[in-house]
Amino acid sequence: MVGVSDRKQFRDLVDPDVAHDAIESLDLAPDAETVPLAEARGRVLAERIDADLDVPGFDRASMDGYAVRGRDTFGADEVDPVTLDLVGSVHAGTEPDVEVGEGEAAEISTGAVMPDGADAVVMVERTEEVGEAVAVRTAVAPGDNVMLAGTDVAAGARALGPGTGLTPREIGLLSALGIDEVPVRGRPTVGIVSTGDELVRPGEELRSERGEIYDVNSYTIAAGVEEAGGEAELYPHAGDDYEQMERLLVEAAEECDLVLSSGSTSASAVDVIYRVIEERGDLLLHGVAVKPGKPMLVGELEDSAYVGLPGYPVSALTIFRTFVAPAIREAAGLPESQIATVRGRMAVRERYAEGRLRLMPVGLLADEAGETLVYPVDKGSGATTSLVEADGVVAVDPDTEYLDEGEAVDVQLFSPDVRAPTLLAVGEDDPALSRLLDRLENPRFLPVGSREGLRRLGGGVPDVAVVAGPVERDVDSVDLGGWTREWGLVVPDGNPAEVGGLADLVDRDLAFHNRGRDAGVRASLDAAIEELAAERGVSRAELADAIRGYEIGSKGFESPARAVARGDADAGLGLRATAEKLGLGFVSLGTESVGIRANPDRTEKPGVEELSEALETAGEDGLFASLAGYEASSLSSER
Amino acid sequence: MVGVSDRKQFRDLVDPDVAHDAIESLDLAPDAETVPLAEARGRVLAERIDADLDVPGFDRASMDGYAVRGRDTFGADEVDPVTLDLVGSVHAGTEPDVEVGEGEAAEISTGAVMPDGADAVVMVERTEEVGEAVAVRTAVAPGDNVMLAGTDVAAGARALGPGTGLTPREIGLLSALGIDEVPVRGRPTVGIVSTGDELVRPGEELRSERGEIYDVNSYTIAAGVEEAGGEAELYPHAGDDYEQMERLLVEAAEECDLVLSSGSTSASAVDVIYRVIEERGDLLLHGVAVKPGKPMLVGELEDSAYVGLPGYPVSALTIFRTFVAPAIREAAGLPESQIATVRGRMAVRERYAEGRLRLMPVGLLADEAGETLVYPVDKGSGATTSLVEADGVVAVDPDTEYLDEGEAVDVQLFSPDVRAPTLLAVGEDDPALSRLLDRLENPRFLPVGSREGLRRLGGGVPDVAVVAGPVERDVDSVDLGGWTREWGLVVPDGNPAEVGGLADLVDRDLAFHNRGRDAGVRASLDAAIEELAAERGVSRAELADAIRGYEIGSKGFESPARAVARGDADAGLGLRATAEKLGLGFVSLGTESVGIRANPDRTEKPGVEELSEALETAGEDGLFASLAGYEASSLSSER
Repeated sequence: MVGVSDRKQFRDLVDPDVAHDAIESLDLAPDAETVPLAEARGRVLAERIDADLDVPGFDRASMDGYAVRGRDTFGADEVDPVTLDLVGSVHAGTEPDVEVGEGEAAEISTGAVMPDGADAVVMVERTEEVGEAVAVRTAVAPGDNVMLAGTDVAAGARALGPGTGLTPREIGLLSALGIDEVPVRGRPTVGIVSTGDELVRPGEELRSERGEIYDVNSYTIAAGVEEAGGEAELYPHAGDDYEQMERLLVEAAEECDLVLSSGSTSASAVDVIYRVIEERGDLLLHGVAVKPGKPMLVGELEDSAYVGLPGYPVSALTIFRTFVAPAIREAAGLPESQIATVRGRMAVRERYAEGRLRLMPVGLLADEAGETLVYPVDKGSGATTSLVEADGVVAVDPDTEYLDEGEAVDVQLFSPDVRAPTLLAVGEDDPALSRLLDRLENPRFLPVGSREGLRRLGGGVPDVAVVAGPVERDVDSVDLGGWTREWGLVVPDGNPAEVGGLADLVDRDLAFHNRGRDAGVRASLDAAIEELAAERGVSRAELADAIRGYEIGSKGFESPARAVARGDADAGLGLRATAEKLGLGFVSLGTESVGIRANPDRTEKPGVEELSEALETAGEDGLFASLAGYEASSLSSER
Repeated sequence: MVGVSDRKQFRDLVDPDVAHDAIESLDLAPDAETVPLAEARGRVLAERIDADLDVPGFDRASMDGYAVRGRDTFGADEVDPVTLDLVGSVHAGTEPDVEVGEGEAAEISTGAVMPDGADAVVMVERTEEVGEAVAVRTAVAPGDNVMLAGTDVAAGARALGPGTGLTPREIGLLSALGIDEVPVRGRPTVGIVSTGDELVRPGEELRSERGEIYDVNSYTIAAGVEEAGGEAELYPHAGDDYEQMERLLVEAAEECDLVLSSGSTSASAVDVIYRVIEERGDLLLHGVAVKPGKPMLVGELEDSAYVGLPGYPVSALTIFRTFVAPAIREAAGLPESQIATVRGRMAVRERYAEGRLRLMPVGLLADEAGETLVYPVDKGSGATTSLVEADGVVAVDPDTEYLDEGEAVDVQLFSPDVRAPTLLAVGEDDPALSRLLDRLENPRFLPVGSREGLRRLGGGVPDVAVVAGPVERDVDSVDLGGWTREWGLVVPDGNPAEVGGLADLVDRDLAFHNRGRDAGVRASLDAAIEELAAERGVSRAELADAIRGYEIGSKGFESPARAVARGDADAGLGLRATAEKLGLGFVSLGTESVGIRANPDRTEKPGVEELSEALETAGEDGLFASLAGYEASSLSSER
């Protein structure tokens, strides 16, 4: 086995500014290219475009009416019209076949070429046809209602400058100039090499027993590359074999403007990459004084730039967003979106004193007044779920010891398209809740369990906590209502072991799959064990010890039932609704309430009101009734 | 000829809200579809995604170190380590081939599967290998440094809700769940039918003598459709032939969710469309009380929705942005960008009293403090150049009589990607100026000529005016410096008519092509004519009358030279630089100064300072010297 104990230590961490400079010093910008007009939106002009023709290209009638010689109409008015001989007509898109002489007029439509001789147009509303003549009731000066050739755009004029971003209106001007091939800045090609023997592409079969996991970083970073104006190219995964890694990295470097490696947290893979860059390219720096991202590598490989990203998904996205995306945008000629950064207030006090720049992943929410609140997430857990909890990053200076509650901070969003949730809910996961959330605009729910949910609600950050079972609710909160659900033991279909109830778990040698201590349904189970213990005159702990698997508590509400479905357990703690969904048997142990409790400071926040209304509607339209064992419950306390 | 005098009058104009409702009532939303994960960025989830697997799928070491039974380490510390027998190693991505018994340990790397028997990991830093054993210098509890299966995402949990916009981080979560095909909202297909016999597609040959013009609206609106989340489909142009129009519209309706007609201002074409919709579909409304866009049609055709847009480019984009784009976004499930609207102050007072909603195209600029200023552009001129001068639209209520200078207004941008210019310059067009502008970040220049430029500078809106020739500069302004240029008569190559100077224009029957009265070079010409008249003791007007073509004044600075190149004139008013560029002959009549004059309220605005610096640099690096007849001039007055 390679590397576990001899992996490289990064000692001389460079300043983050040095890393920015090193990445800026790399040349990512590809050559300019030409794209069809229909594909030019969102691109950036590579060079100035001068008009090569007049718009319009001819003297053009700008009204429906009659083309005349202006001086023929002098003196005409409503009372004393001038009568001109009609000599023909000119339609838009045709070449005039008439000439307008003295005392003559030709019918003309908007956009038509002015016939020779005519220098003005009388609008149709001020005329009247009288046989082969037209009575003109107004005087026009030469040039009236005529747009001279080149009035709009003159040939030779600077139309659009280099660096102009092409939005619909610029596309319009290019159309007017007849340009169907547009010279634009090239999009840098970015090769992404994932490292780690354990990575599997989404869609492929996952062999969990071998420790395989789906590759998260490749697709996340590829999407980030495209968003920054680059073109992403995914390369096969590389393990920590030197020859393979070298071959892949060099292939990517030959084909791309920038190569990013990303994926594994394996120190040995980082070591191998380090050696490849040192031997086949130029390592500019390794190790940056930033958290996360300490082991970041920056260098050159063949004629391409190279940056190595950290392995954890949020860390990889953070380093990409902070150091790499700006370089890709720069190379593509795109400015950073104005909404890539938002300002908010810290919802909690956050301590920090580690002596290096911290790029702190944060979530956003809104207070009752609609002001943005910011709270830290993912304290280095490496969890992929943090990806959707974290909206962006706050850069905390090395000499900042803490961020105070209420302190203003700037959040660099992970994407300009990131939308802060309209509601932050935490607590007990539940299938009815999932359906309820589907009816809301843009909610965020963190399934941390009832106890942890209440604890967080007490901390003041979330808008609401979802609490199930006999959990102590001693947190200042407002009851928004809820529902009840039947809980018990999920068993195989047909209940082959003939499990009759809780006593069977205690008295027989059955393999049980429990939920974790934060789950409300676990509190219901513990209460039932307590009751049985009292009946039998023994301690609760004694009964719990007798249940095989009591100590193993899964976080997911379906996990025990899925263990039963896989044949890994004889019984699992769960809901009737889950058993029914998975086609399993169910032994009821009771009914528990699920309630939504709101942060007292947020009851009038739109997202909370929307939830409250959705809850009410759901009670009426059968959302709960459609789930086995569910019932809407009437509101237990004042709103 | 059809329609000029019998075109439909729209009498009963409906309220704009009714038009919004009518368009909302149309069903544009296509079916959901499935796209590969790599193409899912920017799309919107069509349905809720629940996790169908645990992440991680196995109990996972979260540190490099040794997998142990936690209870074996109880009591271990630096002073008194516990020694465990090494039984093997587990690497990430491989299935463990060891089992950890009592008193045993297995080397393990981050991300590897926990071997059977082990329940905790001791980090490598707190251990030391001693032969076939490992000394453990810290106690770990069961579960320490282990991420249990499902801790990150539990199978059965709601992962992403319907309507979620997919940014890189959501792509990451989908990857983690192994999802490579994503159910997303369909993008509405929008067919665009241009009307007008005179329209030609960019890239095709333009026959100006027939009054042909390039089709601006099709590409502009197509880009707007794509930006709003739809897919645009361009159809061939239709004239005002009923059969052809019917065939095209019905074909588009059969293939698309929405059909837009756009292009011509021809009333007869609108009439024909009106009849097609009435006969083959359902006309919901015709005519909306809004300026522009009065003749807007809304209806259904076959199973598709139909909206008719006005013909002038800015009007078409305005109506599209206000009425149609929101419906496309709604159908695609996309929210409007937060930066689609900006707030600013009116830079000028603007009167309005027409009794219907006015969608006023406006330009943006910044004052010295960086605050956004808003000014009206394109008062119904139909000019395509307004497309790049207008940044968006201000909706002015029917009962608003005027917008005061300084009044706050909300501007709906034509695109969230529209960037307000860093500099608003107006005045004399000039090839050196074009090169200078190329060096600035995002300037806007309106080539209105020296006189009009000065007038506008006096009005207080622009940042700078570029003024050439002997034009009265009686406007309060600050001189930023400038250059000089040689002007005179552009003649055919080799000067076949042997034009010697101004006197030849007066005395011989030569066809002359002049510039318009706003041009500074025209002022130079007029001054030279004045001088010649004085020499001869006649009036200036007498000499001017003797010049054939004196009254025809083009707006474009290259236009006279281009007329000479085409053989349409014997001599044209212009610059030595232009003659050289076009390979023509030149008869010098003198040198004139070109100066940049700044608005006194904007001299410290970054864009103006940038221009000032660019001007200085250009004087040093040869920008002027590279143009025939040009010279940098020293600054004439205080800065």
